[in-house]
Amino acid sequence: MDAIIISIGSELTTGQTVDTNSAWLSQRLAEAGVRVLRHVTVPDEVAPIREAFERAASEAAFVLVTGGLGPTADDLTRDALAAAMGVGLEMRAEYVERIRAFFDARGREMPEANRVQALFPAGSEPIENTCGTAPGIRARLGEATVFVMPGVPREMWVMYERDVRPVLASHTGGACMLAATLYCFGAGESDIGEVIRDLMARGRNPAVGTTAKQGVIGVRVHAWGDRRDDASAKLEATVAELRGRLGSLIYGRDDDRVAAAVAELLKAAGRTVATAESCTGGLIAKELTDIAGSSAYFREGLVTYANEAKTRLLGIPTEVLAKCGAVSIEVAEAMAVACRQFAGTDYALSVTGIAGPTGGTAHKPVGLVYIGLADTAGCRVTEHRFGEFLARDEIRERACRTALNRLRLRLLGAN
Amino acid sequence: MDAIIISIGSELTTGQTVDTNSAWLSQRLAEAGVRVLRHVTVPDEVAPIREAFERAASEAAFVLVTGGLGPTADDLTRDALAAAMGVGLEMRAEYVERIRAFFDARGREMPEANRVQALFPAGSEPIENTCGTAPGIRARLGEATVFVMPGVPREMWVMYERDVRPVLASHTGGACMLAATLYCFGAGESDIGEVIRDLMARGRNPAVGTTAKQGVIGVRVHAWGDRRDDASAKLEATVAELRGRLGSLIYGRDDDRVAAAVAELLKAAGRTVATAESCTGGLIAKELTDIAGSSAYFREGLVTYANEAKTRLLGIPTEVLAKCGAVSIEVAEAMAVACRQFAGTDYALSVTGIAGPTGGTAHKPVGLVYIGLADTAGCRVTEHRFGEFLARDEIRERACRTALNRLRLRLLGAN
Repeated sequence: MDAIIISIGSELTTGQTVDTNSAWLSQRLAEAGVRVLRHVTVPDEVAPIREAFERAASEAAFVLVTGGLGPTADDLTRDALAAAMGVGLEMRAEYVERIRAFFDARGREMPEANRVQALFPAGSEPIENTCGTAPGIRARLGEATVFVMPGVPREMWVMYERDVRPVLASHTGGACMLAATLYCFGAGESDIGEVIRDLMARGRNPAVGTTAKQGVIGVRVHAWGDRRDDASAKLEATVAELRGRLGSLIYGRDDDRVAAAVAELLKAAGRTVATAESCTGGLIAKELTDIAGSSAYFREGLVTYANEAKTRLLGIPTEVLAKCGAVSIEVAEAMAVACRQFAGTDYALSVTGIAGPTGGTAHKPVGLVYIGLADTAGCRVTEHRFGEFLARDEIRERACRTALNRLRLRLLGAN
Repeated sequence: MDAIIISIGSELTTGQTVDTNSAWLSQRLAEAGVRVLRHVTVPDEVAPIREAFERAASEAAFVLVTGGLGPTADDLTRDALAAAMGVGLEMRAEYVERIRAFFDARGREMPEANRVQALFPAGSEPIENTCGTAPGIRARLGEATVFVMPGVPREMWVMYERDVRPVLASHTGGACMLAATLYCFGAGESDIGEVIRDLMARGRNPAVGTTAKQGVIGVRVHAWGDRRDDASAKLEATVAELRGRLGSLIYGRDDDRVAAAVAELLKAAGRTVATAESCTGGLIAKELTDIAGSSAYFREGLVTYANEAKTRLLGIPTEVLAKCGAVSIEVAEAMAVACRQFAGTDYALSVTGIAGPTGGTAHKPVGLVYIGLADTAGCRVTEHRFGEFLARDEIRERACRTALNRLRLRLLGAN
C-alpha cells in the first residue's frame, strides 16, 4: 500500500516556513504499514496543485495533502482538487454553521472570509475539524483516495488520528512496517558506520541507515513483516544487536533529546540536578524542563550571564573572575560546586564559554566552552572547542548536549 | 528562471528527520530571482532518485539536490545521477587525498568507507566541500544544470554560497524576486486577513499571503521586478502599507522571534532585563540570550522550579506559596518584583503556570499561566489560559512569547 504526501503553500516553496507536516505524516504512515513514495511541495497556485494531485493519484493508493484550506484568497486547495476531479464547488450550509459555532464558542463573530471554508468539491466528503475552522476533505480521484487536511500542525494531527488513520488501517490488512531510531553521541558517522557495516547491507530486512546532525548520529532501523508481531520481532532483534555493538554511545530510542535520557536516569535513581549557565543562557534548564514530570529531578537553574550575577548568586569572587576570566576552568568549577551546594541537589552542571559571534580572542576563541559537573565526589571540568564551522546557536546547542551527555554517562557510571 | 529542489533520504520519507534544507535553499533562490516550482523528497533508492532527477531536469533550468552523498551504503545519489546521465562512476584520486587530509587535520585516520565519496559520474564536476568529507557534484542533465550538495545543513550552506549562488546569479540577469515576512502577534489570521484583504488579491504584485503558527501570524510579501531596485521599491511600498494598517501587531520583519524585537528595543533604550521563570523553565532566558550581543541587556535569569527555590532565591514567603499556591497572581507578582530588585535591572519578567500534561485541577487547569512584568512603575500580572488544544511544549512556547510580547509593547509605550 503506497502513499504520496503533498504539502501546499507558497510559504513552503519560498522557504518562509519549514514543512514539518510531511515528516509527521510519514511516521504515522510507516507505523500503519503504508510506504511513502515521495513528498511533493507546491506553491499556492491552482495549476501545480492540480498537476500534483493528478500525478500522485495515478501512482499511489492514498494521497495525503496538507495546507491551502484557510479562509484567505491564497488558499486554493479546494479549487485545485475540484478541477482535478472535473467537478464544481458546493457550499455546505451545515459547515457554515459549524464554523460559526467555532467562533461563537470563543465569543467572536465569524468573519465573512471564513464562509469559503464550507465549500467542497461535488462528490467529496467533508472531514470535521475539531480544533479549528478549516474542515478537511475526503475524495476519490481516479483509483486513489485523497485526504486533504489543514496545514496547521495541531489541527492536522487530530484530524489524521480521528478520521484518516482508521481508513488506512482498514486497507492495509496485517502488513506492517515498524521503525526505530537509536540516537548516538560521542562518535562520528563513519566510525559508527564501520562498526555496523554488515547490518547496513542493501536489501536487508530490517534495513539500517545512519544520519548525522549537530554531532548526533541517528541509526535508523526499518523492519517489514506480514504481521505486526513479525515486524516487531525483526525490529527488536536488530535493535538489540545495535545496542550490543554501540553500547553507551546510544542515548535514546526514537527521542533525540539527551535531556530525556538524563531525565529517565535521574528519576530511576531518585537523584536531583540544578544548573548554573552562562553562555547557554538557560538552554540546559529549558531542555531539562521540556520533559513532563521534570519537577521530580529539576530544582532550580541560575542563568548567571553578567559577572555581577556570578558573584552575587554563586559567590564567585570578583578576583577570580578578574584573574582567570569568566570563561575559565576555575569559574566553571566554582559555578558547579556553588550551584550544587546552594540548591542542595545531587548533581550540578555548569557551562561558561564564548558563543560568539564576537567576544573571542586568539587565546580564548569563539566556541571555547568549559563544562563543570559536580557531585558528591567533587567536580570535574572539561574543555571543548566548538568554534570551527559552528554558529552561535549551534555552539550553544552543542555545549548543552555535551553537558547533558556528561551527566548521562556519570549516571551510567561510565565516566 | 525556474528551479526544482530535490531532497534525498529515507530518513525524510519515513519522517525521522524534518527537511530544513529545501526551505533554506528556497529562500536563497527567491533572493536570486529564481522561481521554485516544487520540492520533491525521495527515499534512498536508485530508481526514485533517478526518476526525480529526470523529471526535474525536463522541467526546470536548475535542479538543486541535497543528501545521499555520505560514506555509507545507503548513500546512492551519485549512482542515481550517473544512471540518469547514462554514464559510469569514476574515482578521482585527488578527492581521495582531500578527504584523507580532512581526517588528518583532525588527527584521525580516514575510514575506508569514505573512499566512495571520491566517486563522480563521468563528465560531472566535483564541488569542493570546505567543512566536511562529502564533495558536491555539478552536472548537465538534458538542458538542466544539476547541483548536488551534502545533506548536512551547515556543509550545504557553505557550498551553496561559495559555488552555487555565483552560477545562478550569472544566469538570472537582473530579474529579481524579493520577499519579506511581517510577523504579528495578538490577533487571529481571519481578523488580519480582513484588514488587508485588498492587498491579498490574486495576481497582485507584490503578492501578499498569510500563515498562522502558534499564535503568530506571518504576513508574507513577494515582489517581482525586472531589476532589483524595481522589486525593492514595490516590496517596500507594500510593507509600509501593511505597517500602517497593522501597527504594533507587527513585531518582526523576516525574524519570527519576539525576543529579537525585544532585544532591539532594549538596546535602543539602553535598558536591561532579568527573568524569574517557573513553568517555562529557562525558555525566556534562552530566547533572550539566543540573540548575539545579549549581554548588553540581559543580566540574569532564575529558574525557580521548586517552591524552595522561589523562597530562597526570590524571598517569596512559604505562607504565600501555601495560601495562594505557586501558580497565582500573588506569586507571579512577587517573583517579578523581587527579581527586578535583586538583579538591579530596569525590567523583570516572571512566569508561573501549569504546563502539564499533569498537575491541573478544575480550579487551576493545565495551561493556566500568570505573567508578571515589573518596572519602575510597579508590577502588572496578566492571566492566560493556553490549555485548550495545546500540548506542554506549546503552552511553554505560548507563555514565553506572550511574556516577551508584553515587554515589547511596554517598551513601545503601547500598554
